[in-house]
Amino acid sequence: MDRGAPRPSEDGLIARYFAPLAGPGADGMRDDAATLTPSPGCDLVVTADAIVAGVHYFPGDPPASIARKALGVNLSDIAAKGAVPRGFLLTLALPDDWTEEWLAAFTEGLGGASRAAGCPLLGGDTVRSAGPALIGVTAFGEVPTGGIVRRTGARVGHRLCVSGTVGDGALGLILRRDPAWAAALDDASRDHLADRYLHPRPRLSLAPLLRRHARASMDVSDGLAGDLAKMLGDGRSAVIDAGTVPLSAAARTALASDPSLIDPILTGGDDYEILCAVPPDALDALLADCAATGIPMTAIGTVTAGDHPPDFVLPDGTRRTFAAGSFSHF
Amino acid sequence: MDRGAPRPSEDGLIARYFAPLAGPGADGMRDDAATLTPSPGCDLVVTADAIVAGVHYFPGDPPASIARKALGVNLSDIAAKGAVPRGFLLTLALPDDWTEEWLAAFTEGLGGASRAAGCPLLGGDTVRSAGPALIGVTAFGEVPTGGIVRRTGARVGHRLCVSGTVGDGALGLILRRDPAWAAALDDASRDHLADRYLHPRPRLSLAPLLRRHARASMDVSDGLAGDLAKMLGDGRSAVIDAGTVPLSAAARTALASDPSLIDPILTGGDDYEILCAVPPDALDALLADCAATGIPMTAIGTVTAGDHPPDFVLPDGTRRTFAAGSFSHF
Repeated sequence: MDRGAPRPSEDGLIARYFAPLAGPGADGMRDDAATLTPSPGCDLVVTADAIVAGVHYFPGDPPASIARKALGVNLSDIAAKGAVPRGFLLTLALPDDWTEEWLAAFTEGLGGASRAAGCPLLGGDTVRSAGPALIGVTAFGEVPTGGIVRRTGARVGHRLCVSGTVGDGALGLILRRDPAWAAALDDASRDHLADRYLHPRPRLSLAPLLRRHARASMDVSDGLAGDLAKMLGDGRSAVIDAGTVPLSAAARTALASDPSLIDPILTGGDDYEILCAVPPDALDALLADCAATGIPMTAIGTVTAGDHPPDFVLPDGTRRTFAAGSFSHF
Repeated sequence: MDRGAPRPSEDGLIARYFAPLAGPGADGMRDDAATLTPSPGCDLVVTADAIVAGVHYFPGDPPASIARKALGVNLSDIAAKGAVPRGFLLTLALPDDWTEEWLAAFTEGLGGASRAAGCPLLGGDTVRSAGPALIGVTAFGEVPTGGIVRRTGARVGHRLCVSGTVGDGALGLILRRDPAWAAALDDASRDHLADRYLHPRPRLSLAPLLRRHARASMDVSDGLAGDLAKMLGDGRSAVIDAGTVPLSAAARTALASDPSLIDPILTGGDDYEILCAVPPDALDALLADCAATGIPMTAIGTVTAGDHPPDFVLPDGTRRTFAAGSFSHF
C-alpha cells in the first residue's frame, strides 16, 4: 500500500491555503476539530454532499468554479431547509497529479464563495484520492428551534412552486458535452446555459420566506420530475402544468427548435432551484414576498392523492410521467 | 462524462441500509439535511476525516472493519477534544465494482460502531467514486461551553502523557504487508498487532478526564513523533524519555528481536491513542483518575523551550529526533 509520494506536508498546505479561510471556532486550523454553537433559540442544520471529477463536474473545469460548485450544492440544501449558513468542513481527496497552482485557484474560489455566503471554513481533511478528485463538503446552517422546512411536509391540495428557471443546468451540460449543439442559440444564451451548469447559485435569500410560508421544501438538484417524486410518495402525487414550468429565454429558444428537449429540461440535474409546497391560502403571500425580495417564484401544480408518479400536463393536453425520472449522480 | 450505470437508486439504498441507523433529527433519512442542537450549556465539536481504499486501508479488509475504522478515526478526534459523541454524517464514494453484499456488511459494521459509541447516523451522501472507495465521516460531539481541549495549549514545563500503548498500529501494518514478518512473535501477539491496525478504539471514556486535567490534547493518528511536533512549535519543544513510552507485550517482543523497529513504533500511524499535556501539579490527579477509570495513561516527557523537533532520549542515552517524523496519509 503506497502511503503517498513526497509532497508539501498536509500541515503546510493547511497553513498556506486553508487557514486564511478559517472562521471562529476553527482555532486557525491548528486543531483537528472546531467548535460550532447555534445562536440562542436556534437548531443547527447539517448536510453533506460530495462532487467527483468526471461524475459531477469536468476535470478541466476552472478550479475556482469547481470550488464554488462544491460549496454551492451544499448551501442550496441549507437554503432549502430555511436555514442561514454558519460554516462548513471540507474533505479534499486529490489525485496524484494535483498541482499547487490548481489548489491555489481552488482555494481562492472557495474563499470567494465562502465570504459571499457568510459561511467560513471550520476544518476538514486532505487525503490522496488514488483516483479522480473528490470534494466533500459538510455545511452547517441554523434555523429558529423547530423551524427546519422538511422535504416530507407536502399535503394533498398544497400548491407546488419552483424558484428561478428549470432545465438550464441540464441544457448547459448538453452544451458542455457538445459545443456545436443548438447552433440556433445566440452567444448570450449559450453563455447563460453554460454558466448555469457550472455555477450553482444557492437561493439563500429565500430561506426566511420558506420558513414563513412553505410546509415542504427541497432543492432541485437531480431534476424537477425526480425530485418532485422524492418529495411526494406515501399516497401523494401531483399534477404539474408543464406550460407553467418557468424556463429561461435560452431554454425557450432551444425548446422551440427541438421539442424533445422537454425531457432533459424536466428530468436533468444541476438546477439548484427550490421546489416547495404551500397551503393554497399561503400561495399569494409567498409569491408577494418573493416578488418583494426579487426572487422569481412560480406556481406549477398541485399535490394530489395517489401513488403514481407526478403527471406533467403538456401544453397540447397530453400527460407525461417520468417513472424513473430522477437524474442520478450515483 | 458517464453519469453512472444502472444500479439500485440512491434512495433505495438509503431506505434499506442507512435509514435503520438514523438518529433523532435525521427524519428517517427522508430529507437532505438533519437538525442537531447541542445540549443547553454545551458547544458542538465538529471534525471530518476520510479514509481511502489502498491509502488508509486495504481494499480487501472486512467491510465491517472498514466501517469501524472510518467512524473510529473521527470519534478518536472527538474524544481527544474532551467531547461526547452526538452523531455523524457519512459520505460514501463507491467504486464501480461495489456489491450490495459489501454494502450490507459495511452498514452492519457501521451500525454496531455507531450504537457502541452512542453516535447515530444523521445523513450523508452516496456517490460514484470513479476510482477506489472513499469513506468520509463528519463527526459531532459536545463539550460544556468553552470546554474544548485544544491541540495548541501545551506550555513549557507541562508533562506529556499518552494513553494505551504506542506503535502497535504501525507494527500491525508491517505485519499486514508481510505476514511472514517477525516469526518470533506468537500467534496472540500477531493477532493483537493486526487487530490494533484494523480496529481503532477511540478513547471516549477519557474525554471528561482530559477536560478536567489537560491543557492540550490530540489523538495519535500519524505517529507519536510527528503528532507531538504538531502539538508543539511556536518556541515549544519536548524531551521524551523513550524508555517510558508504553509498549504492548507484542511490541516489546518485536523490538527485542529487531531494535530498528523503534523507528516505526515512534513514527508510524494508526495508534489512535491520546497525547495530552498537563501542568506538573495536575499529573498525579490525571494518572489517578485514569487508573480509577481503567484507562492506561503514562507520563513520557516534558514540554521544553526551543524550536527544534522533540528529542527522544533512548535507554542507552542517545538522543533521536524525527525531523519529518509525521506519518502522512496524504
